[in-house]
Amino acid sequence: MASTIAEELAEKQREISVAEFFERNRHILGFDTLSRALVTSVKEAVDNSLDACEEASILPDINIGIDRISKNEYRITAEDNGPGIVKEQIPKVFGQLLYGSRFHTVRQSRGQQGIGISGVVMYSQLTTGRPARILSKIGPDRPAHLYDLIIDTKKNRPEILREEIVSWDKGTGTRLEVVAMGKYVREKRQSVLEYLRSTAMINPHAQIEFREPDGTVITFKRASDRVPQLPIEIKPHPEGCELGTVMKMAKDTESYRLSSFLVGEFSRIGNRTAREICSKALLDEDLRPQDLSRGQAKRLLQAFGSVKIMAPPMDCLSPMGEVLIKRGVKKEIAADMVATSTRPPSVYSGNPFQVEAGVAYGGELPKEQTAKLIRFANRVPLLYQQGDCVITKAVESIDWRRYGLEQRGGEGLPVGPVVFLAHVASTNVPYTSESKEAIADVPEIRNEVELALRECGRRMQAHIKKSERLQKLKEKEEIIRKILPLIAEKTSKVLDKPIPDISPIIAKIMDSVLIDGKSDYADGFYRVKIGVTNYTLHSKTFGLYLRFPSTALIEDASPQLDESKAGLIAWKLRLGPNDSIAISLRMGNLELGDYDMVECYVDKIDPEKVMGAEIWNGEFT
Amino acid sequence: MASTIAEELAEKQREISVAEFFERNRHILGFDTLSRALVTSVKEAVDNSLDACEEASILPDINIGIDRISKNEYRITAEDNGPGIVKEQIPKVFGQLLYGSRFHTVRQSRGQQGIGISGVVMYSQLTTGRPARILSKIGPDRPAHLYDLIIDTKKNRPEILREEIVSWDKGTGTRLEVVAMGKYVREKRQSVLEYLRSTAMINPHAQIEFREPDGTVITFKRASDRVPQLPIEIKPHPEGCELGTVMKMAKDTESYRLSSFLVGEFSRIGNRTAREICSKALLDEDLRPQDLSRGQAKRLLQAFGSVKIMAPPMDCLSPMGEVLIKRGVKKEIAADMVATSTRPPSVYSGNPFQVEAGVAYGGELPKEQTAKLIRFANRVPLLYQQGDCVITKAVESIDWRRYGLEQRGGEGLPVGPVVFLAHVASTNVPYTSESKEAIADVPEIRNEVELALRECGRRMQAHIKKSERLQKLKEKEEIIRKILPLIAEKTSKVLDKPIPDISPIIAKIMDSVLIDGKSDYADGFYRVKIGVTNYTLHSKTFGLYLRFPSTALIEDASPQLDESKAGLIAWKLRLGPNDSIAISLRMGNLELGDYDMVECYVDKIDPEKVMGAEIWNGEFT
Repeated sequence: MASTIAEELAEKQREISVAEFFERNRHILGFDTLSRALVTSVKEAVDNSLDACEEASILPDINIGIDRISKNEYRITAEDNGPGIVKEQIPKVFGQLLYGSRFHTVRQSRGQQGIGISGVVMYSQLTTGRPARILSKIGPDRPAHLYDLIIDTKKNRPEILREEIVSWDKGTGTRLEVVAMGKYVREKRQSVLEYLRSTAMINPHAQIEFREPDGTVITFKRASDRVPQLPIEIKPHPEGCELGTVMKMAKDTESYRLSSFLVGEFSRIGNRTAREICSKALLDEDLRPQDLSRGQAKRLLQAFGSVKIMAPPMDCLSPMGEVLIKRGVKKEIAADMVATSTRPPSVYSGNPFQVEAGVAYGGELPKEQTAKLIRFANRVPLLYQQGDCVITKAVESIDWRRYGLEQRGGEGLPVGPVVFLAHVASTNVPYTSESKEAIADVPEIRNEVELALRECGRRMQAHIKKSERLQKLKEKEEIIRKILPLIAEKTSKVLDKPIPDISPIIAKIMDSVLIDGKSDYADGFYRVKIGVTNYTLHSKTFGLYLRFPSTALIEDASPQLDESKAGLIAWKLRLGPNDSIAISLRMGNLELGDYDMVECYVDKIDPEKVMGAEIWNGEFT
Repeated sequence: MASTIAEELAEKQREISVAEFFERNRHILGFDTLSRALVTSVKEAVDNSLDACEEASILPDINIGIDRISKNEYRITAEDNGPGIVKEQIPKVFGQLLYGSRFHTVRQSRGQQGIGISGVVMYSQLTTGRPARILSKIGPDRPAHLYDLIIDTKKNRPEILREEIVSWDKGTGTRLEVVAMGKYVREKRQSVLEYLRSTAMINPHAQIEFREPDGTVITFKRASDRVPQLPIEIKPHPEGCELGTVMKMAKDTESYRLSSFLVGEFSRIGNRTAREICSKALLDEDLRPQDLSRGQAKRLLQAFGSVKIMAPPMDCLSPMGEVLIKRGVKKEIAADMVATSTRPPSVYSGNPFQVEAGVAYGGELPKEQTAKLIRFANRVPLLYQQGDCVITKAVESIDWRRYGLEQRGGEGLPVGPVVFLAHVASTNVPYTSESKEAIADVPEIRNEVELALRECGRRMQAHIKKSERLQKLKEKEEIIRKILPLIAEKTSKVLDKPIPDISPIIAKIMDSVLIDGKSDYADGFYRVKIGVTNYTLHSKTFGLYLRFPSTALIEDASPQLDESKAGLIAWKLRLGPNDSIAISLRMGNLELGDYDMVECYVDKIDPEKVMGAEIWNGEFT
């Protein structure tokens, strides 16, 4: 009888097509709510366009349009000037899930799995029953091909409804048009506009034009004419490679000898290293890789771990760089301080990755709110699923109280005027799901994010301490300068004696040179003001140095500079007791966010007698 | 030239097998860390065993064993007494992703996609290079089949390494053995032990034996001999169906007429409703469904929305029920109060679902910690990805300050002695990823979770208020009873007068009947004590009622009961001014967690004069 049950159950067993799977589980692809469906659709199209342009070294011009057709029904149009797609592959690229060009390459790219854009096509046909329309052209003298297609989800294959050659006054490019259920929202962090804004910020070489449903056109102008260098494709790095992977690679290789297999199919293994690995693994260099047994593969793997192998090459990765991180952090609100940190590249399970982070503190950031997080992966902003991202977990697991922030129990998101930013770049970002909005909690990545954030945290802490000290000193100064003369006057009056000169007393109490720098941005210039007051009993002669971004152009400096090189200017100052001087200048050729805090340094003076500046140790240029 | 780029890029385009995809993205399946890999492996095996036993109406006996083979290498063995798997399908079930029996059925089940267990096989071969071993037998007089197999990930097909008939002294059942990289942890919420504990708790009909790597055997005994009824398979419910889905169903149906298509393929559409829908949609009942145009399908969908259609049948769902929710919440710590709430079944995108929730407050729960969350989906505990689950979001978006808890800014997890539990049961739980650890933020589900939690919250708030009031009253009583006599004595002494009887004064100040109930659990019994004191100037005669679980057996009640029915006992009390009475009893046939708080009710007395009990409105029996 029981056998009947197994046999009965057996009749229901069936193969499930990957398209059916994602059709049913569309939330995994980022289509869980109506508003997110629009963001995801635009995101997949833009990611594809940026990747294609990067591969073809084209400066991207992307046009996105969203039109409202009826309640909750929108037409999404995405057009680029990328290299185009050859005719035969248009249906597969848009009408078949798990079809793509980047899955088998080890290189940082936005898209990888060949799921994103066909997921958009599937979602639109599922919700509105309409086919997707694709137009693509691969050269000025080539025809433009137009396709109307849907996905046959049972087979995971495109079904072409219309196919024709049309005229298109464009050199090269691709245009996608879908009609999908959605909801257009504007004033939210999780919105199409916000996604495009962040994308434009982190891809300054792209020009993105966006037409909203009400006809408003927003243009994110190209800010850099340099196409970012295409990250180089590399081979798998031995560190972190798994036994099963190595066995499969050995089985599939075309090499005849173990040593040439190692040199040929792995990153950072040269002849000498290969020999060393074989010897440590007690394996013959001439062994046929196809004959490698499980035990031998295991020894090989152990040898990978015990032989010194260089870290994977960095050029498969394309980090954001300090300037973009600073702009990212300061995008919305001017902070008092921004610290950034770039970690050296590292590896998890054989995949190279690199972490960059930034922390902004103070200024106009709200003091009583939970810290804000800005997350990026492979130059794509992550707007959803913050709670589950390794970046969030790294922030939450650091005891920020040690860095001067308020945080209940030393874990969770801290509270205060602070913004955290992190970018994880990798040849294979381990997203928690196919919607690619959160990075999985991989220990190696979490560790790197924590290290980067802690480094920024230390600088934030120094800033907080310094601000507090300076604040106290200013209060002290104010009291002394206001109250002491009043007391002197009153007492003199009461005692009927002349008012004494109390400036030596003030100097004696303060006993330091106070340096107070401020900057603000307006009309394309950063205006910097530095006040210097000598509250000591003696004349002081010393050097004052100001660091600034090396690309900045200094104008209208007053007093005139005594020395200047790229990124550093200096004045020689001589101030008698109680003397003050106001230094001012402006810096051009900078965008808002490029300059963060006024960093002053001094030399030839007792560091104990200076407040508001560090001692110049001559290490920078 | 540009055409060359498109053509060059085209050469890299390739189809990706779903196994390759998940091999690369194994974190999506829950294999992101070594410790989680073990939990996921066990979870997938147990989910499958429980589902199979449920389908075959077998009381599950599950044996899990974990052996340490070398550092970070473990053998995981999972054996059940389920119906077994027919020979031909063993390789596909374990060696092919997206192969399963439950994908196309609309019914609550743990597994659905046919990915889980083959994912375990893939992860183990990837990390250790070893094949999976499967043994299965479908009847006492049938042979047991043994397979050693791996997955050919390029093809997503099983590759059989060994296949033989063996003897197995078991009626029916399946046994899986894999060797995988992992890390065994014990003292953590996210651990194999914890997963099995929670699973046993919520599946009291299963017996689960677990052998840890050090040889310790832990048995979670069967607590109920009733196999839960297999949820009934239903057809899609029209509410929430999408245009694309309806068009596809119409194209694929074997019905010849629109009306019979509607009646035959949807849940809750009878002949009358079908006629009404067709008339509203201005469609001929005799229309061939295969000819349905997009415009017609759209009208049909609009008609679905405007015609009254019954909610989907509940029997496709299998909620936990109040008792299991209470046990779930009280599992670790005894709370003062537990409130539960079961929402009526609802629908999202045509998928029926139901939400149950519980809130525990007070008692031994830590006061200064962030609230704890316990999440379940389709009777499976969710241990990971809490941050991103709709349950978490629902808890975080409620302003718990209104319910008496501490919460910064009225959002986020509240702080206090509180535990939240929620269970989402659905024919298609929308997990955020294939590892099935977090439920996507679907508005309909979030709304139901919020409603259920708010209902519990209201009862928690009433409890908190009542406790506070009672606490104040007790303090007042204590002061009055201690201080007043002392004052009377002192004053009398000073004035040299006799000490007056101050009890009428105490009664005048208190002016109420105080009822104070407590319970504790030991040795299989709940002991209940209720103190009643008449702090008024007059004699009071009234009824006191105590509610309790109807399954409980009442013993040793003192004073003797005056009335008793299932779930309710009553005493008639008569107390003179300042009289007290101590009521006590014990309740048997209950497990720890089955009874939560002493609920007293009174009647025939002015409600204003009673503290610590509600007025019995006679609505319960």
